[in-house]
Amino acid sequence: MDIDPSALDLADRYKILIGSVVPRPIAWVSTLSPHGRPNLAPFSFFNGVSSNPLSILFCPANKPDGSEKDTLRNLSHPAAQFVVNIVTHAQSHRMASTAEELPYGESEWDLASLAPAPSRIVKPARVKEAPIAFECEVSQIIRLNPGAPSGGNIVIGRVVSIHAAEGLVNAAHHVDAARLDAIGRMAGISYCTTRDRFEIPWGRKALERSPPPPSDR
Amino acid sequence: MDIDPSALDLADRYKILIGSVVPRPIAWVSTLSPHGRPNLAPFSFFNGVSSNPLSILFCPANKPDGSEKDTLRNLSHPAAQFVVNIVTHAQSHRMASTAEELPYGESEWDLASLAPAPSRIVKPARVKEAPIAFECEVSQIIRLNPGAPSGGNIVIGRVVSIHAAEGLVNAAHHVDAARLDAIGRMAGISYCTTRDRFEIPWGRKALERSPPPPSDR
Repeated sequence: MDIDPSALDLADRYKILIGSVVPRPIAWVSTLSPHGRPNLAPFSFFNGVSSNPLSILFCPANKPDGSEKDTLRNLSHPAAQFVVNIVTHAQSHRMASTAEELPYGESEWDLASLAPAPSRIVKPARVKEAPIAFECEVSQIIRLNPGAPSGGNIVIGRVVSIHAAEGLVNAAHHVDAARLDAIGRMAGISYCTTRDRFEIPWGRKALERSPPPPSDR
Repeated sequence: MDIDPSALDLADRYKILIGSVVPRPIAWVSTLSPHGRPNLAPFSFFNGVSSNPLSILFCPANKPDGSEKDTLRNLSHPAAQFVVNIVTHAQSHRMASTAEELPYGESEWDLASLAPAPSRIVKPARVKEAPIAFECEVSQIIRLNPGAPSGGNIVIGRVVSIHAAEGLVNAAHHVDAARLDAIGRMAGISYCTTRDRFEIPWGRKALERSPPPPSDR
């Protein structure tokens, strides 16, 4: 079955995209308005970029009316800063609640009863309950379709400091996946845990072991 | 515990990044060399960007010696094209095998015994066994640190056609997550399934139901 995306409306394109590009990591992004009011919102078009420079990116699309989301507005000035907090299973309901469309300047922190903790370098607070948080400075913002309904934007951030809960990252800089207990974003209102894990050797060696049993789905 | 990334070497920064930004979706990227030789490689710094234009991105970092990976070399010319194939649990070993470093021009398709299927619009083939594949045209490549060891690059692609297995996408354009059975990338050689799923209502409603039981991890 071949689908021509130009024949689909924006909502249908979006449904195929979020149903296919799974599981997505979740950035719970903390920013400050130019007047210092805190904002917190989840984004799942989010990933790492590289270790050199240590960078991450996330994609806050325009609203359906073509205007920009509060998070992007808060980052659209020189030397803008943000914190990406990683979301655990235990915080998943609070995270989802911060997607609520509040009037500009009203705080998702209050709505979700979340405690801000001071960042080490940047001005926006980190989520105290998040076991790992990346303090970032905006290095670049790319607007693919400025002013367009649901138009794409990419925020690239350089990581200037990392906060990790005691014991989460070991001396060899491995992160304890079971303890982190991160969740991934699926389509609609669906998520997945990271509890059902398996290992595959990298490269040619992957073919030396017998493959996994056929899926029963 | 606060970590100063500038005090870490590249490998340690990378370990924290891939251990924290989880679970990551996997793009199994098919390209052609300028001489028409096929290449196939997995990338987990991958995600959607937006529905307008319908776009995805992935980040092929430079090799440790600062040179560019075959996939990026193959996309570094005007009108470059690629296909993102989504990886199922059943294909996970074949996918991992295509990360093998083969001499430029040798085919990962042969190594993994994979069948190419013709794309509808672009020249690179799609993986026949992949239940969903996005044919893309490169709209922009951003190099954060050209020539640097492990330097970051971002390839943004506009989706020009989508191939979906019969029955995977319904009339309302919802993708069947159980049937897709996608896998996510964790750190090291670790992956997770998308089989352990749960739902949370969006926004304020997320707080109306009782939260999930505390994690036992």
